[in-house]
Amino acid sequence: MELPHHLQRRVFIDRVSPEVDCGRFAVKRILSETIDVEADIVCDGHDELECRLLVRHGSFGQWQAFPMTCQGNDRWLASFPVDRTGCWHYVVAARVDTFATWRRDLRKRHDAGENLTAELAAGSDLVREATHRASPTIAVEMNILATQLLTDTTLAVAENPRLQELMTLHADRRDETKLDPPRPVWVDRSLARASSWYELFPRSWGRQPGRHATFREVADRLDYVQQLGFDIVYLPPIHPIGLSFRKGPNNSLTASPTDVGSPWAIGSSDGGHTAIHPQLGSFEDFEFLRARAESLGLELALDLALQCSPDHPWVREHPEWFRWRSDGTIRYAENPPKKYQDIVPLDFGCDAWRSLWQAIEEVVRFWVDRGVKVFRVDNPHTKPFAFWEWLLSSIHRTHPEVLFLSEAFTRPKVMYRLAKLGFTQSYTYFTWRVEKEELAAYFEEVTQPPVADYFRPNFWPNTPDILHGTLQEGGRPMFISRLVLASMSVGNWGIYGPAFELQDAEPFEPGSEEYRNSEKYEIKTWRLDDPESLAPLIQQINRLRRDEPALATAAPPQMELIDHPQLLAWSKHDPESGNLLVIVVCLQPNDDASGTLALDLERLGLSPDDTITARNLLGSTGSTAEDWPLGEACINLGPKQPAAIYRLTVTAAEDQELGCS
Amino acid sequence: MELPHHLQRRVFIDRVSPEVDCGRFAVKRILSETIDVEADIVCDGHDELECRLLVRHGSFGQWQAFPMTCQGNDRWLASFPVDRTGCWHYVVAARVDTFATWRRDLRKRHDAGENLTAELAAGSDLVREATHRASPTIAVEMNILATQLLTDTTLAVAENPRLQELMTLHADRRDETKLDPPRPVWVDRSLARASSWYELFPRSWGRQPGRHATFREVADRLDYVQQLGFDIVYLPPIHPIGLSFRKGPNNSLTASPTDVGSPWAIGSSDGGHTAIHPQLGSFEDFEFLRARAESLGLELALDLALQCSPDHPWVREHPEWFRWRSDGTIRYAENPPKKYQDIVPLDFGCDAWRSLWQAIEEVVRFWVDRGVKVFRVDNPHTKPFAFWEWLLSSIHRTHPEVLFLSEAFTRPKVMYRLAKLGFTQSYTYFTWRVEKEELAAYFEEVTQPPVADYFRPNFWPNTPDILHGTLQEGGRPMFISRLVLASMSVGNWGIYGPAFELQDAEPFEPGSEEYRNSEKYEIKTWRLDDPESLAPLIQQINRLRRDEPALATAAPPQMELIDHPQLLAWSKHDPESGNLLVIVVCLQPNDDASGTLALDLERLGLSPDDTITARNLLGSTGSTAEDWPLGEACINLGPKQPAAIYRLTVTAAEDQELGCS
Repeated sequence: MELPHHLQRRVFIDRVSPEVDCGRFAVKRILSETIDVEADIVCDGHDELECRLLVRHGSFGQWQAFPMTCQGNDRWLASFPVDRTGCWHYVVAARVDTFATWRRDLRKRHDAGENLTAELAAGSDLVREATHRASPTIAVEMNILATQLLTDTTLAVAENPRLQELMTLHADRRDETKLDPPRPVWVDRSLARASSWYELFPRSWGRQPGRHATFREVADRLDYVQQLGFDIVYLPPIHPIGLSFRKGPNNSLTASPTDVGSPWAIGSSDGGHTAIHPQLGSFEDFEFLRARAESLGLELALDLALQCSPDHPWVREHPEWFRWRSDGTIRYAENPPKKYQDIVPLDFGCDAWRSLWQAIEEVVRFWVDRGVKVFRVDNPHTKPFAFWEWLLSSIHRTHPEVLFLSEAFTRPKVMYRLAKLGFTQSYTYFTWRVEKEELAAYFEEVTQPPVADYFRPNFWPNTPDILHGTLQEGGRPMFISRLVLASMSVGNWGIYGPAFELQDAEPFEPGSEEYRNSEKYEIKTWRLDDPESLAPLIQQINRLRRDEPALATAAPPQMELIDHPQLLAWSKHDPESGNLLVIVVCLQPNDDASGTLALDLERLGLSPDDTITARNLLGSTGSTAEDWPLGEACINLGPKQPAAIYRLTVTAAEDQELGCS
Repeated sequence: MELPHHLQRRVFIDRVSPEVDCGRFAVKRILSETIDVEADIVCDGHDELECRLLVRHGSFGQWQAFPMTCQGNDRWLASFPVDRTGCWHYVVAARVDTFATWRRDLRKRHDAGENLTAELAAGSDLVREATHRASPTIAVEMNILATQLLTDTTLAVAENPRLQELMTLHADRRDETKLDPPRPVWVDRSLARASSWYELFPRSWGRQPGRHATFREVADRLDYVQQLGFDIVYLPPIHPIGLSFRKGPNNSLTASPTDVGSPWAIGSSDGGHTAIHPQLGSFEDFEFLRARAESLGLELALDLALQCSPDHPWVREHPEWFRWRSDGTIRYAENPPKKYQDIVPLDFGCDAWRSLWQAIEEVVRFWVDRGVKVFRVDNPHTKPFAFWEWLLSSIHRTHPEVLFLSEAFTRPKVMYRLAKLGFTQSYTYFTWRVEKEELAAYFEEVTQPPVADYFRPNFWPNTPDILHGTLQEGGRPMFISRLVLASMSVGNWGIYGPAFELQDAEPFEPGSEEYRNSEKYEIKTWRLDDPESLAPLIQQINRLRRDEPALATAAPPQMELIDHPQLLAWSKHDPESGNLLVIVVCLQPNDDASGTLALDLERLGLSPDDTITARNLLGSTGSTAEDWPLGEACINLGPKQPAAIYRLTVTAAEDQELGCS
């Protein structure tokens, strides 16, 4: 049997963290974070190891080396800061450090009073051998040290740090073991981790009820969204809307000439995915809106819905991208026996798939070039996975700042797979999680590894497609509960407004999750100044998300014990600032619930002797601080106050004693 | 950007089980087991998938296909039986099943009353296209079906199972997604999973006290080991023992001419690793012993200790395999400042490593050819990992029946790595785990995935190197406790005898784990018929291990709650036979302990209304059965009875009611 040379590598690397699927996919992290890389590193025998973390940004350029240190039990650690967005790679590399082993044993022999002559000669040989990898100047220095070593009975030379430094710099690394493949780390700007989204249909945002609004009119009222404290204003598709088979109000099959149609039926004689619906305005108007948003600290997010109305220019220009029946008619979307005649799907697997994929890439670049850095992607699960991996990596190569939110509330495995492929954030099942246990389990599932290493949840209490039964039946208390659940648990959340803050709760029909008179098919008139609006509460919530470090850094929620089946409690803790919040939400909208909260003191680093002062930040004027004994507190919530957000201040036991003296 | 063709693969495979490190290492399983392979398999859209498990034994030959079925939530499963030892591989393969998708949708359209003409034509085209991959005879059959499909308004042809069968057989699999690399599964004979080992020094097993015994004398007394019920009799090295620097009694540096030396100082002028120590006998004597063991149902295990005495023939014949000082003397083993002059280590990294590695392979094959199928490997952690992976795979390629037990009580990560590389079983930290919580945690760690997928623990209460402090101080009760802990928890266990059953508890010096007058350096006289011997208990234990299915199949121990800090309880359950044992061990040797056992009824599939009858199998004559109420029982153990092994018989609540009527 042939024995190849690489069998001589003695060091092995195992259980590397962080990684996703052995390096097949990137770990997701945020700009300015420090990434802790750990690995089990083992070697036969008792030799000293040198373990290094090699890091680089991008696919070319120099690898930067960080020494790893052993944490005990053969676990090694090094950290590196990520100071640029985009793709990083790291490699763990390790080798037997012959010189360090020699030096360690020399010290033991010395202390045992052995004759060191032979050992010093061996060490001197190691130094001389290393000079072959040094510059001439350094080689001279090393040769002098090698000679001095021969008589180094006090170990003054052997233990000279300069000598170790030179020997490490000029080590023979040919048999170094290197992690393969290098592990990718994708670094996003911070908005990827913590963001609040506001979805609005621009055509309803005019001053004149019932008339189709323009981008300029939306721009005029954008301060409303800013005052609510959102980061992102997301617009459903802004492209020309098809006329063929246009849907009327309430998704009816026939539209009158005045009906505006669904924005997701993209494309008409006015253009396709790179055009703007004429009633919204021109490209100048679009830029006016975008710039206005930017000046208000808002980012504009567009909808990437890769489907066409039968009137889309591509149908005529690129029939090869669509499916056709033998009778020459185009295949519209259907999920037998349902038919969607207003939509024709693109055939991502057609013979001309390359030109189709590239055309879509050009669409994305078209809008990126016009200042759009955030996309909400419609129905990604009906397009090939490989397409998304290719498209996102292609855009990200030149524009790592672009964020993609995946609308995948589909099957959980599909949702996670899309996240692995490169989506920045994902819609989730939050909207359908309503019971205490399932909410608690879901909070943990999407914020703990392995999921949290590649998946960033975005919680929506409602969307234009989903008016959940709890909102239909639970009234204002349930709107508040779902609002606090979504915004105070994970890093990203959003609402479809003003339907949410105005508590639109009327379903299309009983048992349906569709809105009655859905804005998808008609222009709505919203009374933003409705005194019952939840706008003030949303404003308060988004302010807390910016001001409280535990919320701003998207610390994962830690479920806390509370002994009522309709009360859900969790804490958010930012160890760096000490900021500690406890959020309690009542899940029943009609009745009061009271329970005793038992904080996990040990995990929070608290002692039973500490005095905890809690202030409910949701109080309208800043409610009175409460003193909580021993980490236990009785919480009373109900229809009048469905949720509480406590900021805890801890007075350590020793400080109290000092105060007494 | 180039778009390669493989991007057209639409199906992705994720979270495959079982696997070790994404297929880098083999999963370990046992002959005749059925292996359940699961994977998440996802595709865009709503198409039907065909998922297959491909399996083959060895590296060549045909892959056998098993259809996978969806278990819900995109998790697919198939099972395959392993009817041969050695290396198997499996691959999960999946593709979009266009024909099945068409047929599903056709049914929906039919039921919705649609005109099917165009759809039937499309299906007919699918069948005709598939004929290109069929034999001429089959193609004729398929063409007939294709024609019939055109007018198949009742779906009689479309839903004909024969048509689906033909379409699956002749499917276009070019875009099938296949798991890469194939996942290896190593299949051992059943002794690998459940075995009991008895280690003995043959030279002490003569009839005449103090005289060096021979293999034939050992053979004469082997029925003792058989009667104790062991599977494997393991001998320390049987090779010629070196004279240079031979160790005297109690590891003293000077030996008298009559001192027998350590068997681990391998090699003299009489030969090395392929020779037999002359005082033990000839190769004929060895074969006599081996055959005698076989006739008693015992397997002979040899010690593979890859080190040499300075007198080993290799030192003279292959100086290139050793390390030499500049003064021409050989480097003996040392761990500075300790020196082991009687041992010279092989230099696995020498320039001539290839010939050294191959010589060792020949040593193993030499003994395998002489009927040795079990090796206990000494200090594997001081030889390169790559050497072990190469050696074990090389031997296993031709002799998959050979078992290797790794003596790696070294660092945990090293121990696990060696198991991944191919060792069949491993020594563990059991010997040093003494507290309730650490024992419970360790039992779970080594018997649950991920560890259990590649690591098979072998628990030893003592070895010639380790007389643990608990045995030194705990007397007979502690010997019994450790015996039951080792033998009733994991699949493999062993003792160094007769030191164990005769409760030799005298350390070399206080605080030492070495035996006083250790058998490693001298011939011992053992009184096997000592009335205090634990032999009867061991016999009983090993009989239970054969007779009770939960022990014979090495079911993992499930820790059970018992409310005393010095009582440890666990259950072993074989669902197939219904066999259910509960073992309770007292960890304090001097005082009684009593606690209430609260079985996890739900996990055991029991109802609180069931009546449980428990019989303590460790009773000398079979004690009276006890009735346990509601899964709770008060257990009293102590110095007189340090352990209990209960077999539970469950009378289901409905049966009781029947009995009453």
